[in-house]
Amino acid sequence: MLNTLIVGASGYTGAEVAAYLQRHPHVHLSGLMVSSESSDAGKCFSELHPQYKGIVDLPLQPLTDVTEAAKDIDVVFLATAHEVSHDIAPIFLAEGCTVFDLSGAYRVQNTQFYAKYYGFEHKNTAWLEQAAYGLAEWQAEKIKQARLIAVPGCYPTVSQLSLKPLLEQNLLDTEHWPVINAVSGVSGAGRKASITNNFCEVSLQPYGIFNHRHQPEIATHLGTEVIFTPHLGNFSRGILATITCKLKPGVTEAQIRESYQQAYHDKPLVRLYSKGVPALKAVVGSPFCDIGFAVQGQHLIIVGAEDNLLKGAAAQAVQCMNIRFGYEETLALL
Amino acid sequence: MLNTLIVGASGYTGAEVAAYLQRHPHVHLSGLMVSSESSDAGKCFSELHPQYKGIVDLPLQPLTDVTEAAKDIDVVFLATAHEVSHDIAPIFLAEGCTVFDLSGAYRVQNTQFYAKYYGFEHKNTAWLEQAAYGLAEWQAEKIKQARLIAVPGCYPTVSQLSLKPLLEQNLLDTEHWPVINAVSGVSGAGRKASITNNFCEVSLQPYGIFNHRHQPEIATHLGTEVIFTPHLGNFSRGILATITCKLKPGVTEAQIRESYQQAYHDKPLVRLYSKGVPALKAVVGSPFCDIGFAVQGQHLIIVGAEDNLLKGAAAQAVQCMNIRFGYEETLALL
Amino acid sequence: MLNTLIVGASGYTGAEVAAYLQRHPHVHLSGLMVSSESSDAGKCFSELHPQYKGIVDLPLQPLTDVTEAAKDIDVVFLATAHEVSHDIAPIFLAEGCTVFDLSGAYRVQNTQFYAKYYGFEHKNTAWLEQAAYGLAEWQAEKIKQARLIAVPGCYPTVSQLSLKPLLEQNLLDTEHWPVINAVSGVSGAGRKASITNNFCEVSLQPYGIFNHRHQPEIATHLGTEVIFTPHLGNFSRGILATITCKLKPGVTEAQIRESYQQAYHDKPLVRLYSKGVPALKAVVGSPFCDIGFAVQGQHLIIVGAEDNLLKGAAAQAVQCMNIRFGYEETLALL
Amino acid sequence: MLNTLIVGASGYTGAEVAAYLQRHPHVHLSGLMVSSESSDAGKCFSELHPQYKGIVDLPLQPLTDVTEAAKDIDVVFLATAHEVSHDIAPIFLAEGCTVFDLSGAYRVQNTQFYAKYYGFEHKNTAWLEQAAYGLAEWQAEKIKQARLIAVPGCYPTVSQLSLKPLLEQNLLDTEHWPVINAVSGVSGAGRKASITNNFCEVSLQPYGIFNHRHQPEIATHLGTEVIFTPHLGNFSRGILATITCKLKPGVTEAQIRESYQQAYHDKPLVRLYSKGVPALKAVVGSPFCDIGFAVQGQHLIIVGAEDNLLKGAAAQAVQCMNIRFGYEETLALL
Repeated sequence: MLNTLIVGASGYTGAEVAAYLQRHPHVHLSGLMVSSESSDAGKCFSELHPQYKGIVDLPLQPLTDVTEAAKDIDVVFLATAHEVSHDIAPIFLAEGCTVFDLSGAYRVQNTQFYAKYYGFEHKNTAWLEQAAYGLAEWQAEKIKQARLIAVPGCYPTVSQLSLKPLLEQNLLDTEHWPVINAVSGVSGAGRKASITNNFCEVSLQPYGIFNHRHQPEIATHLGTEVIFTPHLGNFSRGILATITCKLKPGVTEAQIRESYQQAYHDKPLVRLYSKGVPALKAVVGSPFCDIGFAVQGQHLIIVGAEDNLLKGAAAQAVQCMNIRFGYEETLALL
Repeated sequence: MLNTLIVGASGYTGAEVAAYLQRHPHVHLSGLMVSSESSDAGKCFSELHPQYKGIVDLPLQPLTDVTEAAKDIDVVFLATAHEVSHDIAPIFLAEGCTVFDLSGAYRVQNTQFYAKYYGFEHKNTAWLEQAAYGLAEWQAEKIKQARLIAVPGCYPTVSQLSLKPLLEQNLLDTEHWPVINAVSGVSGAGRKASITNNFCEVSLQPYGIFNHRHQPEIATHLGTEVIFTPHLGNFSRGILATITCKLKPGVTEAQIRESYQQAYHDKPLVRLYSKGVPALKAVVGSPFCDIGFAVQGQHLIIVGAEDNLLKGAAAQAVQCMNIRFGYEETLALL
Repeated sequence: MLNTLIVGASGYTGAEVAAYLQRHPHVHLSGLMVSSESSDAGKCFSELHPQYKGIVDLPLQPLTDVTEAAKDIDVVFLATAHEVSHDIAPIFLAEGCTVFDLSGAYRVQNTQFYAKYYGFEHKNTAWLEQAAYGLAEWQAEKIKQARLIAVPGCYPTVSQLSLKPLLEQNLLDTEHWPVINAVSGVSGAGRKASITNNFCEVSLQPYGIFNHRHQPEIATHLGTEVIFTPHLGNFSRGILATITCKLKPGVTEAQIRESYQQAYHDKPLVRLYSKGVPALKAVVGSPFCDIGFAVQGQHLIIVGAEDNLLKGAAAQAVQCMNIRFGYEETLALL
Repeated sequence: MLNTLIVGASGYTGAEVAAYLQRHPHVHLSGLMVSSESSDAGKCFSELHPQYKGIVDLPLQPLTDVTEAAKDIDVVFLATAHEVSHDIAPIFLAEGCTVFDLSGAYRVQNTQFYAKYYGFEHKNTAWLEQAAYGLAEWQAEKIKQARLIAVPGCYPTVSQLSLKPLLEQNLLDTEHWPVINAVSGVSGAGRKASITNNFCEVSLQPYGIFNHRHQPEIATHLGTEVIFTPHLGNFSRGILATITCKLKPGVTEAQIRESYQQAYHDKPLVRLYSKGVPALKAVVGSPFCDIGFAVQGQHLIIVGAEDNLLKGAAAQAVQCMNIRFGYEETLALL
């Protein structure tokens, strides 16, 4: 049994991690923590997340002393703000924990990226270099070895899972940058008071055009430029990405299909569509990333969908843990 | 032309008042104001309410000096917090303005009510006594004379319009308190950052059971006790009230219909259903209160619906202004 | 292993039953069937319900010969129209199957009830008499013995679970009929083309006032009259019922709480609230019925909530199967 | 006063036309008609569209004899199926009516287009050639002369209004086809029973990829190829289009802004954003098309938004009528 701690269990992704872990046969959920300044400290987890009443009723403990918190803990999930993860991950690591970080603090091995897109100076470059990027279907070998796994967020997961097989097989004319239009549910913005996320204010709208931090994350890990336009949608959960690409001359539909098959035929959490493309409802509440596509001449449209809190966060984090410790990849997820 | 000022135009009801007034042929919209501490001060109205871009583009001015603000103003609409209205209404009145107050500060002529339900001591008892209660279909004569009109809120409007004709005709067995179950859209909570009103947190739920301040307001003005249970619904606008009553023995459906007809046959903003009951969609975006009912034996169910921001706030305020100044009751509303 | 068949797996409740059964350790999901006239016959289950792609990919077979379909089947779930269940249940029973019927065909042991509220003549009175009413928390002993279990629908489940403990303890003044106001998600109307359930047409509205078939079902099984007003809400899943009652003189809050505790302290799928009342979001997607209440003088308001497709249908059906065959009550449900 | 008839007033766009016309000072709403096979024939308009109760209560008359229906009618709005419009427009025209057709029957002057994308043979080629394309901001001169105005639909309106100024000024590198990703509300599919549009089935999803009939309509009228991917969104009304383009080398943001200004500075129903881009909520319920954009290097993203039923249908039709008969362009619309 792995003694496991979740830091940031008041938020939506932390809560989903907790729900998965409580039913994981090799995990003991040792504690749920929140920032010591949080007004949620001391409350019961299921008071904030009433759907888990009777299932997870642990208290949300304030994280005051990280070293103390790490005692007897094997595994930590950080569902914390980027800067908090940046600061506390090394302390947990120094205490011998394996850390799954759901923040952006260790995803891109480039300190300037953090200065520019996250507004803080990255000081833990040694750990940044050692961190495995937790895109589970593509990084299993690194994840198995790693002490620190930087789980990618929602937009990068669906974008990379959709594009990577084609780029690996060199099927795209990358002079024409892939155009990623993605719409995310409001939960992507986190559980917090905000006028923007007030029920009456939410409606479909683009944001972060040309300057969202996930654009360089996607481009860096794919090794090619993309145009990434995120949108807020009027739903709680899920992401649907519509990706428009140009194929290299002569590339056939069969080649595209083959590249996806090769990449994912043995990956249980990616579901390929033999015809049609996914709708958002296919993935909400489940740990899958669904992918379909359509071709016309040299034009290709890929549609990827996932639950932003699950395959785009919590489910992928637990999937990484399963890979890391040698359990079946989907344990506790399905 | 009436020189008119709106205080609190950053909120949802203030915005609706602004939209009505800008198309009112006898109104000059002199200014839009917000609390001087508001972070919206200085912004353009249509920056907050983009649907009015090109229609109302006035700045939101900070209200620093009430006396100064009242200069050359004939009419003021207060879409402000209860205590703010309590404080500033008398100043506007002293400067000669006619005041339409959309807050709760002058609705119930009982200072203990304010101590108990609003948490402040009411100090303007002279004005509290003189205020007309702006339930437009029933208080036209008082409204015509008043300097201060306390426009009732959303729940009390639909509840009273639904019940008052039957009580006036003495058709109800009030030993059995009418049970008012009402569901309101999220805009009823105002335009503000709040975890409760975060898009992801909203779902159908009762609140304020047995202790909502609108219960005594309704009971006082109806002159009979009621059980009032408000609910938050997962929609932006509108209120639907389902009211279960006991009839006096022998009361017929025809008597009920007749009492509604008598009360509202000449009231353009109340629509009576000759069969069936209203759905919420019938009233969202329009200034009406719709009323239908069904009878079985001594049991009566009344269904009333209105847009909480319109007949439940802004439209009724403008309706009161029309009555007060002798214009057609629906001017600028339809 | 129980060889199990679902008839009516194209619908929302049938699909939820399928999802539970596929993960039940003692069940073999032998087949999914639909009416032989259904345009869904021959399609893959997950084509209709894409969230189950890769999880349940069985074909929807047309039910042409019931006797043939019953061969080697131990357990049948009927998620079919009332008249279809009425007709085919006896054939499955004659073939030795245990039948869990999610329709209304065997819920009320009164043939006149069917003529009046369902519009058909009930011809299987022997089975109607033998059927156990599958309100799982209250009928376990009968369910354990039964061959035919008539699983109650969504409104009756939440209404009875909320009221029965108080009636059993004789705490209510039933001269004042309990007023049940309930709002259901659109899935309650089934998976079908209908202008009423078109996305653009749905808004909060009462329906079936004074004549909904669930009123007599509730009243019969509770043994007391109620006023039941169902509403359609603008959400897919869930039911929230707000129930207003009159207490007998002198009844205390402690007595109410005690009666609930006594009834449900050992019932894992009823969650009692020690303070406050449930919101709809607490139960959507989970098999629980949540109950909370508030008291003021002799007035009591109970709020019950459940997922209409789960505790209000599929989860309760599987719970009944678990009880019937001696498995842990929540097996496959949590 | 123009005697005016609406055919197809049972649908969402027909209803919006009716609402505008009833408040138009130069229009007499002579009648509302529906197909003679429609089950809505004989019903009251406001029975179907209850928001207009007391405002438009005309009966929906069955259209049996077109010549008879045309008697004494000056203007006809056809909110009918494509083939119905194809058939009846010439009869109304022969009777001397001016026809505003909201269907697709006369939008593209290419009969093969109809065979391929609409599935019928176009037989009224003379009228097809004479029809003015009712993109109001760009076709005013033709509209003023026309007897038959083919009002463009929702996707083509927002797409063309967004792109046309830049193409006219030759600012785009059209080797890189503009990528139009658009999300429409469910009302775009019309008022009808359909499993696809059942409340529970709707979720964000692309459809008609590479084969939607609006792609060739847009491309033909713009004179350049585009990639057009429509999506269904989980909301009733509105369209938001995110358009990704490549600029010609050296084109500046100022040039783009200037081209929009030049095109629309005197067009009251197009609102340009000097910073930022529109959200859907800015246009729902109003007759505007809102346009904003962002530039980075040679990459340009334009965001256009409109209410699909208003600027994308009914409001533009009435705008065309105002232009055609010399009234102020926004009369009855604002």
